[in-house]
Amino acid sequence: MRTQVAIIGGGPAGLLLGQLLHRCGIDAVVIERKTRDHVLSRIRAGVLETGFVRLMEEAGVADRLHERGLVHHGTRIAAHGRSFRVDFSDLTGMPVVVYGQTEVTRDLYDAREAAGLATEFRAEGVAIHGADTGNPHVTFSRDGTEFRVDCDFVAGCDGFHGISRQTIPLSARTEYEKTYPFGWLGILSRTPPVDHELIYAASDRGFALCSMRNANLSRYYIQCALSDHPEDWSDAAFWDELKRRLPEDVADRMVTGPSIEKSIAPLRSLVTEPMQWGRLFLCGDAAHIVPPTGAKGLNLAASDVHYLHRGLARFYETGDAEGIDRYSEQALLQVWKAERFSWWFSGLLHRYPDMAPFDLKMQQAEIAFLRDNRAQQRAFAENYVGLPY
Amino acid sequence: MRTQVAIIGGGPAGLLLGQLLHRCGIDAVVIERKTRDHVLSRIRAGVLETGFVRLMEEAGVADRLHERGLVHHGTRIAAHGRSFRVDFSDLTGMPVVVYGQTEVTRDLYDAREAAGLATEFRAEGVAIHGADTGNPHVTFSRDGTEFRVDCDFVAGCDGFHGISRQTIPLSARTEYEKTYPFGWLGILSRTPPVDHELIYAASDRGFALCSMRNANLSRYYIQCALSDHPEDWSDAAFWDELKRRLPEDVADRMVTGPSIEKSIAPLRSLVTEPMQWGRLFLCGDAAHIVPPTGAKGLNLAASDVHYLHRGLARFYETGDAEGIDRYSEQALLQVWKAERFSWWFSGLLHRYPDMAPFDLKMQQAEIAFLRDNRAQQRAFAENYVGLPY
Repeated sequence: MRTQVAIIGGGPAGLLLGQLLHRCGIDAVVIERKTRDHVLSRIRAGVLETGFVRLMEEAGVADRLHERGLVHHGTRIAAHGRSFRVDFSDLTGMPVVVYGQTEVTRDLYDAREAAGLATEFRAEGVAIHGADTGNPHVTFSRDGTEFRVDCDFVAGCDGFHGISRQTIPLSARTEYEKTYPFGWLGILSRTPPVDHELIYAASDRGFALCSMRNANLSRYYIQCALSDHPEDWSDAAFWDELKRRLPEDVADRMVTGPSIEKSIAPLRSLVTEPMQWGRLFLCGDAAHIVPPTGAKGLNLAASDVHYLHRGLARFYETGDAEGIDRYSEQALLQVWKAERFSWWFSGLLHRYPDMAPFDLKMQQAEIAFLRDNRAQQRAFAENYVGLPY
Repeated sequence: MRTQVAIIGGGPAGLLLGQLLHRCGIDAVVIERKTRDHVLSRIRAGVLETGFVRLMEEAGVADRLHERGLVHHGTRIAAHGRSFRVDFSDLTGMPVVVYGQTEVTRDLYDAREAAGLATEFRAEGVAIHGADTGNPHVTFSRDGTEFRVDCDFVAGCDGFHGISRQTIPLSARTEYEKTYPFGWLGILSRTPPVDHELIYAASDRGFALCSMRNANLSRYYIQCALSDHPEDWSDAAFWDELKRRLPEDVADRMVTGPSIEKSIAPLRSLVTEPMQWGRLFLCGDAAHIVPPTGAKGLNLAASDVHYLHRGLARFYETGDAEGIDRYSEQALLQVWKAERFSWWFSGLLHRYPDMAPFDLKMQQAEIAFLRDNRAQQRAFAENYVGLPY
């Protein structure tokens, strides 16, 4: 098999890149370890920045997003029984759109299928060869048969646990990492969301987040110990704990119900530098992880895809390699901004085990300053809706 | 002796309060442990917020400040060889005024003397009695003679090491404290300042600050180990280290000379809650300490003085005690804002011994965000010139 760009990973980053390249007349093969159904069963956040929505439009896959996405003009931040709203549209002129990552991925697969583009599912033992030469190729097997894809470039979109990042020798990359001393316990339930916008809550008992997928599908999270297991938490215990962390009026109007999914995710910050090695480019979670506070993960993947597809389009159109040569440098500017915001916003709202009384006071003062100062709210809102690429 | 308000401490907080009370026709005695000359020999920062300048005007002691103070419309922040300027006047409409604390104190003593107001110097063994009753009094001795001042109220303006805070029983107050794992080594030299505005610098070798008293008196600081002693640092070693932490163009135009003062100060954040106990009110450093980054200490003392003198003036004029009853509550709102800013600004620029590579990247990203984002600059500038009382 021969293609121009081999895309490792059929999640939203790889699919969006494939679709954008297709619109520029560039041939790409998507190589995915799992089945399409498996990819679509992954539950992930879905707060989309305007930049993400524009890329979906550019890729010609934004119809369903515009039809079903929930436009949020602000968010609520609650702390110690009080809450205030940050009005994104007033502060920045831009809203965010709540639309599940699963839906994004489905739309992209539908478009890929409609265009008849090649996707290799159930690709086992994927390996990237010769990324530091002018002629890279990718190998994998399926049902005992070996496959080889020759290509000009490899886009590593296979996430944190994927092989793309690990293909870059340790001597050629630096990893910056922070782990957080807690996790998020999340549930999905077929109940109407407690509010039409998200509520981020800091409390003496830890962080909580009220989120949603649609008008009858709620997603709630509470900060939990890293040693907790989902099965330790009955639905009743989850709802009780969630309500204790919210202002009374919010807790009082919460509609509870059985969970249809319950899981714990650790929080991590990670960046790999550089994000390219020869003809291999890392995109999205393959290159960086943010803690979920502020929902930057998917949006940051889109920022990478934006820079990479433009670099590749320019290269194939004019032979000018500047965009691809500077891919890592340009993408990392955005990456560090989003890492900073996600780290700061996590620190603002979570309870850390080693917080001294003074640290708690600083956290409260930081929240109060965000509540009371319009410039601080604006800086926050600009980050939340997405800093311009 | 009988007075309406006994003011413990003849530093700028106590003197400013005394002057403002005098303008309202309220009688006060200032009780100071040292001599006037000793007080005037203390070298302290002097970046005055507009709020401070207005209080000096209200106290009728702003003439020399207006004549000799250096109006600064912005400041420069340098990091890793690059620098940018934050324009306070553009962002907030307000500048700051550089005018040494020693000068402020001298102006206040001159006014106090001109008005013939009582100051008790060399007061030894000062003690506050009956602050939790309706009839407090203060005792002290001088040259073996005992003195007693009966009063309606006591204002504790005697700083971090003073007896006022310690007069409040531990059961009636909470102290929030943070110590920082480094100090500031500062020198004063009769050289023209390297810039007409302050330069705050972050570097791999630690923090540095270029400041000044006037056109031929410079004040420079470098972050140092807490275990360092001023005598470990020759002038040459200081200038060398300072220059290494600054952008090359700044270092190149630095005029060096012999130090006329050299000292090391630890960095500390501390707040006592509440700031009043019965008829005793704490003002300034007696109630709270900020690290010097951002020069909030003197300005925060002025905020306390503002609330206290208004509360007292209202009480003596109308009998309404609301202002004095709510003194602590109101003053603390300002205190926590300034504590937050000083803590954040210190964290932004210093090198901490336990910083992981990711933490350093976050610090750099935070500085870059301040450089590139106007809303963040505005939030910074509003804090720097002083949040409104």
